[in-house]
Amino acid sequence: MAKKLVYFFGKGQSDGNAKMKSLLGGKGANLAEMSSIGLPVPPGFTLTTEVCKLYYENKKRYPKELKSQVETNLKKLEKATGKLFGDKKNPLLVSVRSGAAVSMPGMMDTVLNLGLNDRVVEGMIELTGNDRFVWDSYRRFIQMFGDVAMGVPHHAFEHELEEVKRAIARRKGIQDADSLVQEALNKKVPDVAMDVDALKTLVGRYKKVYKKYTNEEFPQKPRTQLWHAINAVFNSWNNERAIAYREINEIRGLLGTAVNVQTMVFGNMGDDSGTGVGFTRDPSTGEKSLYGEYLMNAQGEDVVAGIRTPHPIKDMQKENKKLYQQLQTIRKKLEQHYKDMQDFEFTIEKGDLYMLQTRNGKRTAHAAVKIAVDMVKEKLISQSTAVTRIEPAQLDQLLHPMFDVSEESKAKVFTKSGLPASPGAAVGQAVFTARDAEEWTKEGKTVILCRLETSPEDIRGMYAAKGILTARGGMTSHAAVVARGMGKCCVAGAGEITMEEKAGRMKCSGQEIKEGEWISLNGSKGVVYVDKIKTIPPKVSGPFATLMKWADKLRTMGVRANADTPQDTKAALKFGAEGIGLCRTEHMFFEGERILSFRKMILVAPEVKRLRDLLTDEKEEERKVILQTQLEKPMKQYLEALKELLPLQRGDFAGIFRELNGKPCTIRLLDPPLHEFLPHEAEGQRELADALGIDAAQVKTTVDSLSEFNPMLGHRGCRLGITYPEITEMQTRAIIEAALQVHAKKIKVRPELMVPLVGTAEELNMQKQVITDTVNAVKKERKLKKLPFPFMIGTMIEVPRAALTADKIGESAEFFSFGTNDLTQMGCGFSRDDAGKFLVDYVKAGIYESDPFQSLDTAGVGKLVQMAADLGRKTRPNIKLGICGEHGGDPKSVKFCYQVGLDYVSCSPFRVPIARLAAAHAAIENPPRKTKTGARRKTARKRAGKK
Amino acid sequence: MAKKLVYFFGKGQSDGNAKMKSLLGGKGANLAEMSSIGLPVPPGFTLTTEVCKLYYENKKRYPKELKSQVETNLKKLEKATGKLFGDKKNPLLVSVRSGAAVSMPGMMDTVLNLGLNDRVVEGMIELTGNDRFVWDSYRRFIQMFGDVAMGVPHHAFEHELEEVKRAIARRKGIQDADSLVQEALNKKVPDVAMDVDALKTLVGRYKKVYKKYTNEEFPQKPRTQLWHAINAVFNSWNNERAIAYREINEIRGLLGTAVNVQTMVFGNMGDDSGTGVGFTRDPSTGEKSLYGEYLMNAQGEDVVAGIRTPHPIKDMQKENKKLYQQLQTIRKKLEQHYKDMQDFEFTIEKGDLYMLQTRNGKRTAHAAVKIAVDMVKEKLISQSTAVTRIEPAQLDQLLHPMFDVSEESKAKVFTKSGLPASPGAAVGQAVFTARDAEEWTKEGKTVILCRLETSPEDIRGMYAAKGILTARGGMTSHAAVVARGMGKCCVAGAGEITMEEKAGRMKCSGQEIKEGEWISLNGSKGVVYVDKIKTIPPKVSGPFATLMKWADKLRTMGVRANADTPQDTKAALKFGAEGIGLCRTEHMFFEGERILSFRKMILVAPEVKRLRDLLTDEKEEERKVILQTQLEKPMKQYLEALKELLPLQRGDFAGIFRELNGKPCTIRLLDPPLHEFLPHEAEGQRELADALGIDAAQVKTTVDSLSEFNPMLGHRGCRLGITYPEITEMQTRAIIEAALQVHAKKIKVRPELMVPLVGTAEELNMQKQVITDTVNAVKKERKLKKLPFPFMIGTMIEVPRAALTADKIGESAEFFSFGTNDLTQMGCGFSRDDAGKFLVDYVKAGIYESDPFQSLDTAGVGKLVQMAADLGRKTRPNIKLGICGEHGGDPKSVKFCYQVGLDYVSCSPFRVPIARLAAAHAAIENPPRKTKTGARRKTARKRAGKK
Repeated sequence: MAKKLVYFFGKGQSDGNAKMKSLLGGKGANLAEMSSIGLPVPPGFTLTTEVCKLYYENKKRYPKELKSQVETNLKKLEKATGKLFGDKKNPLLVSVRSGAAVSMPGMMDTVLNLGLNDRVVEGMIELTGNDRFVWDSYRRFIQMFGDVAMGVPHHAFEHELEEVKRAIARRKGIQDADSLVQEALNKKVPDVAMDVDALKTLVGRYKKVYKKYTNEEFPQKPRTQLWHAINAVFNSWNNERAIAYREINEIRGLLGTAVNVQTMVFGNMGDDSGTGVGFTRDPSTGEKSLYGEYLMNAQGEDVVAGIRTPHPIKDMQKENKKLYQQLQTIRKKLEQHYKDMQDFEFTIEKGDLYMLQTRNGKRTAHAAVKIAVDMVKEKLISQSTAVTRIEPAQLDQLLHPMFDVSEESKAKVFTKSGLPASPGAAVGQAVFTARDAEEWTKEGKTVILCRLETSPEDIRGMYAAKGILTARGGMTSHAAVVARGMGKCCVAGAGEITMEEKAGRMKCSGQEIKEGEWISLNGSKGVVYVDKIKTIPPKVSGPFATLMKWADKLRTMGVRANADTPQDTKAALKFGAEGIGLCRTEHMFFEGERILSFRKMILVAPEVKRLRDLLTDEKEEERKVILQTQLEKPMKQYLEALKELLPLQRGDFAGIFRELNGKPCTIRLLDPPLHEFLPHEAEGQRELADALGIDAAQVKTTVDSLSEFNPMLGHRGCRLGITYPEITEMQTRAIIEAALQVHAKKIKVRPELMVPLVGTAEELNMQKQVITDTVNAVKKERKLKKLPFPFMIGTMIEVPRAALTADKIGESAEFFSFGTNDLTQMGCGFSRDDAGKFLVDYVKAGIYESDPFQSLDTAGVGKLVQMAADLGRKTRPNIKLGICGEHGGDPKSVKFCYQVGLDYVSCSPFRVPIARLAAAHAAIENPPRKTKTGARRKTARKRAGKK
Repeated sequence: MAKKLVYFFGKGQSDGNAKMKSLLGGKGANLAEMSSIGLPVPPGFTLTTEVCKLYYENKKRYPKELKSQVETNLKKLEKATGKLFGDKKNPLLVSVRSGAAVSMPGMMDTVLNLGLNDRVVEGMIELTGNDRFVWDSYRRFIQMFGDVAMGVPHHAFEHELEEVKRAIARRKGIQDADSLVQEALNKKVPDVAMDVDALKTLVGRYKKVYKKYTNEEFPQKPRTQLWHAINAVFNSWNNERAIAYREINEIRGLLGTAVNVQTMVFGNMGDDSGTGVGFTRDPSTGEKSLYGEYLMNAQGEDVVAGIRTPHPIKDMQKENKKLYQQLQTIRKKLEQHYKDMQDFEFTIEKGDLYMLQTRNGKRTAHAAVKIAVDMVKEKLISQSTAVTRIEPAQLDQLLHPMFDVSEESKAKVFTKSGLPASPGAAVGQAVFTARDAEEWTKEGKTVILCRLETSPEDIRGMYAAKGILTARGGMTSHAAVVARGMGKCCVAGAGEITMEEKAGRMKCSGQEIKEGEWISLNGSKGVVYVDKIKTIPPKVSGPFATLMKWADKLRTMGVRANADTPQDTKAALKFGAEGIGLCRTEHMFFEGERILSFRKMILVAPEVKRLRDLLTDEKEEERKVILQTQLEKPMKQYLEALKELLPLQRGDFAGIFRELNGKPCTIRLLDPPLHEFLPHEAEGQRELADALGIDAAQVKTTVDSLSEFNPMLGHRGCRLGITYPEITEMQTRAIIEAALQVHAKKIKVRPELMVPLVGTAEELNMQKQVITDTVNAVKKERKLKKLPFPFMIGTMIEVPRAALTADKIGESAEFFSFGTNDLTQMGCGFSRDDAGKFLVDYVKAGIYESDPFQSLDTAGVGKLVQMAADLGRKTRPNIKLGICGEHGGDPKSVKFCYQVGLDYVSCSPFRVPIARLAAAHAAIENPPRKTKTGARRKTARKRAGKK
């Protein structure tokens, strides 16, 4: 038997089905599927993708059996429709469309109304009684066929169209013909001016154009038209655009494209005809009711063009009850069959309803959640399917205030050059210093803090502000990271803005915003508006909670939050965090007056170090004595400052432990370089000097001596703890004492102490020694044999060298937490504060798939993570592994973390639900094996704090 | 038969030999060896290290056979010496010394004169007729035995000594007794004041001290003394100091220490006795003649203490011809046996010559080279052995001017806090700006350029200066790297200096140096002197050339140099470079007036980029038109500036190609961030604005907008080429055109174009496209079918991500050059400009074995190199691999490069001989296998440019 090359569909019978995408293409398979479940699809047939393959393998010749199979199916089609191809009385018109297994914009799209010719036109006019419609269809067909199938330049037809329109205009005495044409072209005004005669003239001109470019008369035989169109589709598979598209999108392994030949139906054949689009549920609210629009005596393109206003589908209930009932039946059938909300297109031709297309409908996050949860209740889908239906990133819409879309679209843009650094919407009066942000807020005003860039000094102002805008810095700049941590809207690195902080204004493309003027930020898009835009508060409704409960049940990986204060911790727990994966201790130093103590310590620390270094020169006994007397004063000041900080930090930790109530808390020792805590401006330096009763010059000297060329790679992280072990000591003591204090009140505590920026095992060992010595000292003071709570010491893996030598580091570390922000900075060689300048271009150029600070660069940085995880487990099989970089809240990165086998991810509180959902997706896609690993994962999950 | 636990040596017969170090310890094996080759060694015996092991295994009890074996050997010793242990008439005195297989300062050292007691003292006095000598020996023995063997505190004996000395002083009427004592203690003035009575008193007092601390009388039986001493040696094996020493130095796998008991010989028994040290060749010149000093009627310690001035050994020729002849025979025997220059100690006791020790002698680099080459000529050693005799690092002494050591030791130190950034010595007048350095030099002055730190703007001043001093920056800071490249002395990062450039002075620990004052730099040590110190020019003598020829024959790895100019290239070739491994194009931009063109380009480049970015928004047709008109002017300026630079760069490259005469030249495209080329001070910005006829504010705005938080991780390397492909185009064109120009003159050329800072394969692909397009354009213009010379495109591997994905990158790169400076910065997370602040401490604390910028961190960064080499070869088996970081000139790193299988190393011209020698060492230690790899290496060597 000859190979089956053509598949029929229609009238409740189909040769193919939805699973045959690779053979029939997406469109063909879908049409076959709809047909076979009894939906009224205009019948037709599909030439398989295999034909395409054979066509190219055989020097662009078709397999010989094709012609007869097409002919057989054409006959079958004529029989099914009761129409005849090329018949004057009852002509069969068809559409010809390409359709590969993957949608591919590079190929030929559609030829409509194929089958029309001079003779059929006449018959059609008789049939429809609408000569304008028929002539317009004919001229459109010639144009489309010529352009799409035969390669006649589009502009050649357009030129004729303009000429004819001009002629009409002249005839009608309209002087300014160009403006009319322009208007018609630009605004897609209907060609009302074109009468039947004009259309006839146009058909004649089009035929001439066709001949000029093809050296052939326009073909009058429908079969010739059909084969030309089929050829065109197959040839378009290998045109430059299609090849480029496949290369860019890395589409491989396809046989070719299929060709779909389908009966035309017309919604514009009179008042008993029409067209519409429907949703099986409301795509904006998720309500379970038919939703959509329709328009009688119209074609789909009329609806799209917005020429006439369509009616809501519910109106049909009154106006055409039968059709409405039919649509309701279809709605039910679609959902029963596709198990998802469908977005479908239909046409009514002389009272008969036809389905042209159906696909999963787009919906708002809100609707998506409601639909998924409802469908589980309706037993249409499983909980697990419901969970996978929601894209984790969509949740952002539910967790932050958003702009009213219609208001936003009308608002005046200040700049679009910003990065979407922290999602949500914020409206407020512009202020240009952190101090103003604080003070204005105290006065009851709502402000947006606008800065060139932010630094830790601005923290309090950032807390006070409703939103943050910076002109410099990337997605993981200080402003962006802190804002996301606070769940606060932020637009960062808006490079087009000239920020004049001292003058209290900013400028962009000729616009200026002065202090006190209202602006609006869209932190999800990175856009700044000059206006006040209405915002809609977040809705964390019932279905959302249900869905998250299911997600939690399904996932195996823990989810923690990055939080630095009791308030943040509270927020994190509300969002479902199972502990804190990163508690940054440095932000604590900025609260209240404590910054002064901290600065006092910093100002004297370098002198302490210098004198100590001299002391190590043991041979010079005398010098030693002198130095010890020199050292006494600065050492005292240094230790005093630390002593002042101890109770404050202890209080912070106690507050966090109380909130956590037994959930684990990973606390990172001091990380940023010391100069970040000092004022860099002369004014601030003077104030500090006054507060401490010292000389301003001394402050300046210290700030200068601490300044660094590349602070990111400077004296920070555990390098500080190694130079100044007393800081590590103080922080350890604060943690242990706080834990004991909270534990004494019968509240469980689980502190995990994390050493940052470790590059070698020796660094960790040295810091671990300081930590255990301090713990032992506290135990001795309290007369404890052991700590009455679990306590772990681990490290961040954020320096490439640490990842490379993780086997060694694993000897001392009880856990690794991947600091993928810094690992990306060092691994890729990008300063997160500077890379904004070129990273956008890099993503545009495809050098990176996405911003590596937003979504983990799995091929590069991910390799380091994988390597470190493997090496760490080799040394310590039960090592706890987590991630606390910004990537912990990025769905794609969460999936990667799951693949690598991390025990948990940690992210900003506001991204916790996203991470929970992403973790569930990962587990569903790739279920944990029931082997040892599985067992390990469960234990791991427990250890990670998951219930 | 019982296990042999004691080994006899002496009188030309020995139970052991030099190979038995692990059993007899280093000292014991050496004494046995000297004995057995017939050298007159005072006889003795060695208790093996196994005894030590058994002692500890058996709860500090000796194996029972030990006692009898010691007794047997003691008898043998008495027979061999004709003396008896404890005999009054002819007493046998011995020394007892510890000696493990590895020299270990933590253990007990030596007890001399063991066997002395009250009775023997009398006999000795009769025998020697020198009661002062005997009583002094006795009191020394008690002190040494008490202190070293029995743990009596040193100060307890010292106290008695002082008391006695004070008594003498009082008796002699010297009032200021303390000062006398002080003088004696400090300057080691001989105790001439101590007469026999005083010594007798002292012996009495010492015995009391001994009893007080040990609760025992001082033992009179020599055998008791001996066993106490043996116990002490074995116990010292596990004292805290020794354990700590072994831990720190990672000494493992030793059985224990041996104990050497050896007959005492005395050089102070009269005028027919004496002592001396000898070298078999002159350790300072390498001349083949007996060299050394001796002193009659003296002990070794007298020579060491510098109490009397010893005579040169050649004087002995006149004074004691027989002894001299005997020493000559020994000299010959030693060299024949040890095949190396020996440094030996001897004692003459009553006319008999005894050898106490021999070891390979220390020597100057100059002598080392001459001796090694001479010994090959004398057929004592092979060429390969000669090559391994010279430590590559030693060569530095031969390649740079050095200070006269005696002058340097007397010079006044300004600071020792500097880093030895570029070796050699330099003397000049201090200047504090690059401009002054240039101008003063033009006036014929010799200057040292003193800066807080240097930047590319200072290049011309650095060229002009004799030496460079900076107060900031590490071993691979700009100043250090550039200075090494120029072979210019540099002390960098002298953190103690307060540099006041504007005031024209610098301060350090209360001293001040003003502009114009003379200073001297020791770039090999990192020391700055206030004085003018005499320098000695480098000597690259005949033997040096011979040795290097042998090294070249033996090595398989190529050695290239980093050079940026024809002059540097010339120097590099003189030092034996086989090509250029790194030609940095950016330094060229600073020469002459060309910096102006380059700055003109930079000033307009950001605007060009901004406008271009807008252009990509294709939909906004109108905007496009407007922008194209906006773009015209800046684009023209941008291209014009590049056009001005083209012929200048072409000329530079042509000059280098001519010098190289067919040797390969790897040229790196522009690497530093653009802001490094702009003036950062207001004054410089004003000047630039004036020169270009623009507004100073505009210059400032551009400088500000280009400034970066972490320039190291910023917009540089190929990131520039991707943003500004025209720069890559211009540089490629300059290279190709220069190569064609030189080739036309029948000079061979081998350009290799290197793309810097690649992190992903896509970056390289994009730059490669620009390069090949440019090459094709040049070919088309010249009507060439192919380039008439070999041409390669490769990349630096300096971003960790590049190393991790080197398989992908290897698809486009024809060669990899490891940029280990940046790879270290990013891999370890160290900014080379800032890390100086803590890296010194890190090395001190053992966190890194050595500064990872000086010697490659093989465990971390080396892992990346290994990984990249493996991945690269997997994709492209014949990929050429080299290193062009500073590590290319570090012997340890060169060895690592050899192990990884790199084809060549590249380093500063002045380090080329070091690298050549290190490469030879590597090949000798680990000869290339005769397998495919070997074959590959040979090809590789050819490809690397090695003849």
